[in-house]
Amino acid sequence: MSLLIVGSVALDNILTPVDRRDNVLGGAGTFFSYAASFFTSVQLSGVVGDDFPQEHLKMLQDRNVDISGVEIRQGEKTFRWTGRYLENMNDRETIETQLNVLGQEPPKLPDAFTRAQYVFLGNAPPSVQMKTLDQIQGADLVAADTMNLWIDIERGPLLELMQRIDGLVLNDSEARMLTGELNVITAARKILDMGPSFVVVKKGEHGSMFLSEHEIYLVPAFPTETVVDPTGAGDSFAGGMMGYLAAHGTTDAESIKMGIVYGTLIAAATVGGFGLDRLREMTKDRLEEKLNQFRQMVSF
Amino acid sequence: MSLLIVGSVALDNILTPVDRRDNVLGGAGTFFSYAASFFTSVQLSGVVGDDFPQEHLKMLQDRNVDISGVEIRQGEKTFRWTGRYLENMNDRETIETQLNVLGQEPPKLPDAFTRAQYVFLGNAPPSVQMKTLDQIQGADLVAADTMNLWIDIERGPLLELMQRIDGLVLNDSEARMLTGELNVITAARKILDMGPSFVVVKKGEHGSMFLSEHEIYLVPAFPTETVVDPTGAGDSFAGGMMGYLAAHGTTDAESIKMGIVYGTLIAAATVGGFGLDRLREMTKDRLEEKLNQFRQMVSF
Repeated sequence: MSLLIVGSVALDNILTPVDRRDNVLGGAGTFFSYAASFFTSVQLSGVVGDDFPQEHLKMLQDRNVDISGVEIRQGEKTFRWTGRYLENMNDRETIETQLNVLGQEPPKLPDAFTRAQYVFLGNAPPSVQMKTLDQIQGADLVAADTMNLWIDIERGPLLELMQRIDGLVLNDSEARMLTGELNVITAARKILDMGPSFVVVKKGEHGSMFLSEHEIYLVPAFPTETVVDPTGAGDSFAGGMMGYLAAHGTTDAESIKMGIVYGTLIAAATVGGFGLDRLREMTKDRLEEKLNQFRQMVSF
Repeated sequence: MSLLIVGSVALDNILTPVDRRDNVLGGAGTFFSYAASFFTSVQLSGVVGDDFPQEHLKMLQDRNVDISGVEIRQGEKTFRWTGRYLENMNDRETIETQLNVLGQEPPKLPDAFTRAQYVFLGNAPPSVQMKTLDQIQGADLVAADTMNLWIDIERGPLLELMQRIDGLVLNDSEARMLTGELNVITAARKILDMGPSFVVVKKGEHGSMFLSEHEIYLVPAFPTETVVDPTGAGDSFAGGMMGYLAAHGTTDAESIKMGIVYGTLIAAATVGGFGLDRLREMTKDRLEEKLNQFRQMVSF
């Protein structure tokens, strides 16, 4: 089944306690589509400036990512994020954000993309996410990401969006902020009351949780000793999950659990290098190997 | 197989953001032995004052806990801890500690206890834990708990103890403190280098991790919305784990994983009430029911 991701394509400057890299290919759309491409072809909608290196688009194309929805705006610059990870490699501070093309009119979906059956709305203002949703013609499953900023300044539109999507994917701190509940299970239940039929709460190094009306699934993080750059972990997680679902044409809870497991393995590879460096070394066979290792670690 | 726990028996005053209880039966020895008693008979070594209510000992006896190793010191008072849990129900502050009998000579093991095949050394100064170990005659498996205080002020004896035990059970913050490693997997590996053949790292609401030379197991916490009093969660976790192992007479990694799963379920019941209140409502049948629910939540 066809899978659409609407998300940012970025150039990042990343500082860690031990290293620094500039002009790293990043953005939710990038990580998501690369991760999903292990399972299925992907439609990527995004916007870049004319400073964006052609080789990155070529690389995504080679992974069966349809980049006809990536608008290249002449005379404009690509979205840039400069951030620094703290000693624990979990918390980070933003040093600079240059919105550039991301601060302008969002790209329009190509016709073919509006008929996607699986849709993921990458992090963006909920009002913008809804404009994208307006263009979608009856998808089987729509999931969205959000962030603390929108919970804070666009709460109304976010609550409206939540009535229109099947699944919400967010961090534990965002789930607490959205609901005012400290207990993450209680927070997740409250999110279901707000509209979505399922919620996936990401807890970083502590794994993730799936909650729907009748099911709770718990997936620990895959143990990773070498965390080089956590950027994109959450987006590759979501890409793995949605890619798996689209490839199998399923939307049931058990399938989402399996998608989350694959997303977990892909996210673990992502954090092992800057940008896509380590993830690009991953193969489908290696992924199946990791799956068996992981099953042995958590099943009883 | 026989199981010995050497640990504190206490009376606690517990304050939470919404409630307060005084004179609650507590202590590592109490929680551990109650939890282990779901699987096997338990030998409890501890010491109390003559203020300790007889009914508590009777209750443990009814659970097949051998209390012949609990010394009642006349004219002395039982160990008392008064603590307050913060809003997140995870962090706590100690308001008052009255060591009383716990500040005196530790109790001597009855002869029968020295031949225990499974031994758990509850949290105590490592020098004291070693004196207990000196009395043990060739156990199949010895595991120990420790805490930040001993890592800080009794590091030498702790390192010596670690050469003599099979397993160390400790919190993630303690594992980091002991090894100076921020990554919990790296910290756990370093702990193996210090002597034990396995380590169990407890991460509270984020579950736990088992590490040995060739195995890593990850067990999420059982989802719990109602956390009334987290006191004793770690001790009932360890009691469930060791009780399961002693009941099956096994020491292999797969068995320890299963023990950790049961410990997880028992700890989740413990935090649902003050002291042993909720755990006392648990039955073996109910535990098996929870096990099936839990398997459905984490297996894939």
